[in-house]
Amino acid sequence: MTFRHDGHARIGIETKTGIVPLDELVPGAPDTMLGVIDAGEALLSKARQALSEGKARPVAGEVRLMAPVPVPRANVMCVGKNYYEHAAEFEGSGFDSSSGGQNIPEVPIFFTKVPGSVIGPDDEIDGSLDTDGTLDYEGELTLVIGKEGRRIPPEKAYEHIFGYTIINDVTARATQQRHKQWFLGKSFDTFCPMGPAIVTADEIPDPTVMQLQTRVNGELRQNVSVKDLIFDIPTMIAAASHGMTLRPGDLIATGTPAGVGIGFKPPKYLKAGDVVDVTIEPIGTLTNRVA
Amino acid sequence: MTFRHDGHARIGIETKTGIVPLDELVPGAPDTMLGVIDAGEALLSKARQALSEGKARPVAGEVRLMAPVPVPRANVMCVGKNYYEHAAEFEGSGFDSSSGGQNIPEVPIFFTKVPGSVIGPDDEIDGSLDTDGTLDYEGELTLVIGKEGRRIPPEKAYEHIFGYTIINDVTARATQQRHKQWFLGKSFDTFCPMGPAIVTADEIPDPTVMQLQTRVNGELRQNVSVKDLIFDIPTMIAAASHGMTLRPGDLIATGTPAGVGIGFKPPKYLKAGDVVDVTIEPIGTLTNRVA
Repeated sequence: MTFRHDGHARIGIETKTGIVPLDELVPGAPDTMLGVIDAGEALLSKARQALSEGKARPVAGEVRLMAPVPVPRANVMCVGKNYYEHAAEFEGSGFDSSSGGQNIPEVPIFFTKVPGSVIGPDDEIDGSLDTDGTLDYEGELTLVIGKEGRRIPPEKAYEHIFGYTIINDVTARATQQRHKQWFLGKSFDTFCPMGPAIVTADEIPDPTVMQLQTRVNGELRQNVSVKDLIFDIPTMIAAASHGMTLRPGDLIATGTPAGVGIGFKPPKYLKAGDVVDVTIEPIGTLTNRVA
Repeated sequence: MTFRHDGHARIGIETKTGIVPLDELVPGAPDTMLGVIDAGEALLSKARQALSEGKARPVAGEVRLMAPVPVPRANVMCVGKNYYEHAAEFEGSGFDSSSGGQNIPEVPIFFTKVPGSVIGPDDEIDGSLDTDGTLDYEGELTLVIGKEGRRIPPEKAYEHIFGYTIINDVTARATQQRHKQWFLGKSFDTFCPMGPAIVTADEIPDPTVMQLQTRVNGELRQNVSVKDLIFDIPTMIAAASHGMTLRPGDLIATGTPAGVGIGFKPPKYLKAGDVVDVTIEPIGTLTNRVA
């Protein structure tokens, strides 16, 4: 995880007794998550070794989690309409101006969110920016790329994954609809809550067994198994990398399931004071309040 | 301009006698274009002063131009369908799966190209990446943001522009169509030629008088005045910044005019060996060959 402590951003590993600073386990370790991802397995194995030798001393005092990658090097990539029931609810909502009348896409649909939209756990979503009052949530499992590659075959896709995190793909629905291409309505400041942690791939041998749940003010809205993805993780990575090199630190949000605000009639838009929790164990829960 | 000399990337100013290195005019000047943009007018006025005092000594030896911003901090933003005749030709081509049957958009449509797709003048476009054989060009005037701002009113938009450059928004048409959202078919490696220079805003008091011309193997394909934009520069900046903070170094390609390959029947796709020139004076000509 990336956390703030004594005014500095640091990298730490969550343990049963608290957050252990990486640079106390491995002297000279990078102090940013992008640096850790670039360093890769060589660094992680040193950290594991040091942890197993009991060199763990959790950080004392107040700790504030930040987005695991507070400033990505490129826009966050996202896959649209990647769960069957969500594809149907989005089509039925009238907000999808990009479908050509097609409910289930034939190939993964990719769009992006600007790096400046990223916020961390417990940071506030600025709902006032959506002046149409159509603020919506989308809980999503997110891949963190660890190894560069182009035209990655599906059977090698998992080798390119450093780990997994959670993104709430907050969306201004009217803007998304009006502008046809989804980028703008997805990229307002604070519209990309991320966290609470990256769980490295070795700890999640089969991501399809994970369950994604989104709650608004405690009410369960989204509840799906990752195995219900229309395009599975290998298919997404193969499609994204067909002509574009995926790079360490790239983030791919894998799509949201049914149960977003516009899936209800009438729509259940977010309003000031609402609290959104997105939970995917073992990653944890990403909580953000709407300001 | 950003140029490579003796194995190093440097910043220079084009003069009648050659490229003058910025750090010889202003000792301690930043050595990246993003640094120059961040430094802003304070740095530029020092450079102007030094130039007017005849401190100019052009660099000697071989110089290779690079993209003015070789690695942008975020995806390059682009506006789609922003000239009337191009909006019509794109709709008529059958490749626009995002229009909802709407020829002229009601608001600017924004999409993005990944930073890793940027190449410089005279670098080669890797046409082999488009395995559908639907490679196309799009010459575009591109805004370089110099001053941070959100919800920028149209009447203040020009205050936020650092300068202007050219982008060739190279596109894999079949991928663009299949994936609905345009990001992927626009983001293949080498698909964002940029350059040859950034002309600072003070030298272009009225960008609408500029003419954009694209040639393929010397044949004039695109030829339009910037004043024919559907959404003018102030409108684009106001729309982009409604909920998203624009930051120094952000790039906004303003859209391509009629005359792209798919505007012809049958389409005139690019093939290996083709040379594409995009000219906008006083910025210059951006030339790239298809490999």
